[in-house]
Amino acid sequence: MSIPATKVTPPLVDELDIVIPTIRNLDFLEQWRAFFQPYHLIIVQDGDPTKTIHVPEGFDYELYNRNDINRILGPKASCISFKDSACRCFGFLVSKKKYIFTIDDDCFVAKDPSGQEINALAQHINNLLTPSTPFFFNTLYDPYREGADFVRGYPFSLREGVTTAISHGLWLNIPDYDAPTQLVKPLERNSRYVDAVMTIPKGTLFPMCGMNLGFHRELIGPAMYFGLMGDGQPIGRYDDMWAGWCAKVICDHLGLGVKTGLPYIWHSKASNPFVNLKKEYKGIYWQEDIIPFFQSAVLSKEATTPQKCYVELSKLVKEKLGPIDPYFEKLASEMVTWIDCWDELNSATSKIDVVPKKTEAAPKKK
Amino acid sequence: MSIPATKVTPPLVDELDIVIPTIRNLDFLEQWRAFFQPYHLIIVQDGDPTKTIHVPEGFDYELYNRNDINRILGPKASCISFKDSACRCFGFLVSKKKYIFTIDDDCFVAKDPSGQEINALAQHINNLLTPSTPFFFNTLYDPYREGADFVRGYPFSLREGVTTAISHGLWLNIPDYDAPTQLVKPLERNSRYVDAVMTIPKGTLFPMCGMNLGFHRELIGPAMYFGLMGDGQPIGRYDDMWAGWCAKVICDHLGLGVKTGLPYIWHSKASNPFVNLKKEYKGIYWQEDIIPFFQSAVLSKEATTPQKCYVELSKLVKEKLGPIDPYFEKLASEMVTWIDCWDELNSATSKIDVVPKKTEAAPKKK
Repeated sequence: MSIPATKVTPPLVDELDIVIPTIRNLDFLEQWRAFFQPYHLIIVQDGDPTKTIHVPEGFDYELYNRNDINRILGPKASCISFKDSACRCFGFLVSKKKYIFTIDDDCFVAKDPSGQEINALAQHINNLLTPSTPFFFNTLYDPYREGADFVRGYPFSLREGVTTAISHGLWLNIPDYDAPTQLVKPLERNSRYVDAVMTIPKGTLFPMCGMNLGFHRELIGPAMYFGLMGDGQPIGRYDDMWAGWCAKVICDHLGLGVKTGLPYIWHSKASNPFVNLKKEYKGIYWQEDIIPFFQSAVLSKEATTPQKCYVELSKLVKEKLGPIDPYFEKLASEMVTWIDCWDELNSATSKIDVVPKKTEAAPKKK
Repeated sequence: MSIPATKVTPPLVDELDIVIPTIRNLDFLEQWRAFFQPYHLIIVQDGDPTKTIHVPEGFDYELYNRNDINRILGPKASCISFKDSACRCFGFLVSKKKYIFTIDDDCFVAKDPSGQEINALAQHINNLLTPSTPFFFNTLYDPYREGADFVRGYPFSLREGVTTAISHGLWLNIPDYDAPTQLVKPLERNSRYVDAVMTIPKGTLFPMCGMNLGFHRELIGPAMYFGLMGDGQPIGRYDDMWAGWCAKVICDHLGLGVKTGLPYIWHSKASNPFVNLKKEYKGIYWQEDIIPFFQSAVLSKEATTPQKCYVELSKLVKEKLGPIDPYFEKLASEMVTWIDCWDELNSATSKIDVVPKKTEAAPKKK
């Protein structure tokens, strides 16, 4: 008798959606086929909704364009940005899965120093399924990794760690620089492969990039709102930063962990620094007030869910950042709208129909 | 006419002392000769003062044994531990230099992944001479390194960084594990070369290992007291941890930076886990109270120098940790003695003669 073949099931295949915001054909998926094909994709089409986005054969996906977003959310669609990658958070909203991995369509498979192709998704899953250690720094980095552990002097009571909510991956080739740095260092490429994953300590903020990002949707999804950017807004390219600042404050409050480091993806194309400067300049100015605001933001004991935390944070934004510019009052208001949407689409008794329909104006289900 | 040869002077050669605690002949220096020989060594001989320690030819050094320590400090010598590597801090006290590099005598030259020998001292100097960024996390690690910078979303007002006070290096081969972990993983070796230097964020404590450590003596030296360990004490192997906790709290208070990561040294020999367990067990128990104590320690606005900070901290230790065990009252008292010694030996009008004498009982100057 022959031994039956064991089917290797990719991890979390039924519990994770891959969210991709795009304005173009998704040919980049060809390179990711071996790693992504077993998973479900949620594609958020930005820009002109009449344009057809080509998705390579064999991928299981649903696709939403602006018309779909307007139809599904109605007047509340105002909280979803247009003509900016911030629209990706619509994918977080309509997912029904426990985990999200989101990636930009100019990100390709990177290689580790041994020349092996990096399965970025598998590394994010590993990061998310192992604990974080936000209360004390481990000098040998991730203590749960093979060949590593907690070093001498690390309190034993803290060695169980906490649940990881966010896994922030990095980029080889084009680094994620702001417009001024792009202008000053147009030729700089990131070629340093740092073989580490680490927890960002409690109380420390970080610049979260949305290009290569995994998170626990049930635990922190409601805080992953990418704000008001792009069309009709005075600012762009701060969508992921905003989500990162909010999410980190809420993770710290709820005792959840945030990791950064591996996996790397290959970021292929630098965006135009002159265009970026126009999008960023108010953000560059405002962030000097935004950072101290988030560093000192304190949530109440009553804020026990990410939704409650986020609504509390929106009130603080209105109160403390509103005086800087009316933009922040509008943002605070849409933060609340976002949570309304989240609760409606994610409640057990949700009455909103988000099942992609096979009509022309509706999202395409493959 | 020929071009005159340019003499390359090693960095900080007149501003840095290398401090080595030892009980044996310093043959390990042979491997470090190319990197250490231009620098002055301060050797602190632990254990039997009648034993002669052999130092390889050609090194410039001064050596202190227990008799020297007793002669120089008199009754205040009680603050310097005996039969424990904690005695190394005597070297910090008698140095007149701006920077210290301290290394254990079982640490050898490591190689980077390309096979090149790592000049650990040069990397520490580089870490110390470039700023730290304790107020916000940079996801591409040290932004001052070649090929790296601050990423998008990093506030511009924080990009100048702060002065670096401590550079904490790591270890290939034998990792710095506590006795329980040594017992559980006797064969674990660290073979992962993580090509990164990073700032430990403000407000985050870390386990500082004294094996491979550089620091700015003028700025943080008074906090680098390695406590009461070894002979006559209920605890060992927490000397560097104690110094690290105190120093980090004081760096955070004074706005100084602490870096960890590169350089690696090759740690050759694991110490006996059974002996270590005996030394550590009270520390393992006590640190569960010590860590929360340091995490919540607040220094006053009047504490504007490391000395003032340290004396304030000693009072907090007495008040908050004293009730745990009389050991902490004794330690708090010796922390004050240490600062007395520091001020006496480091004042412009110091009356204590620490110049090593060429008599038999006195330290040897080569």
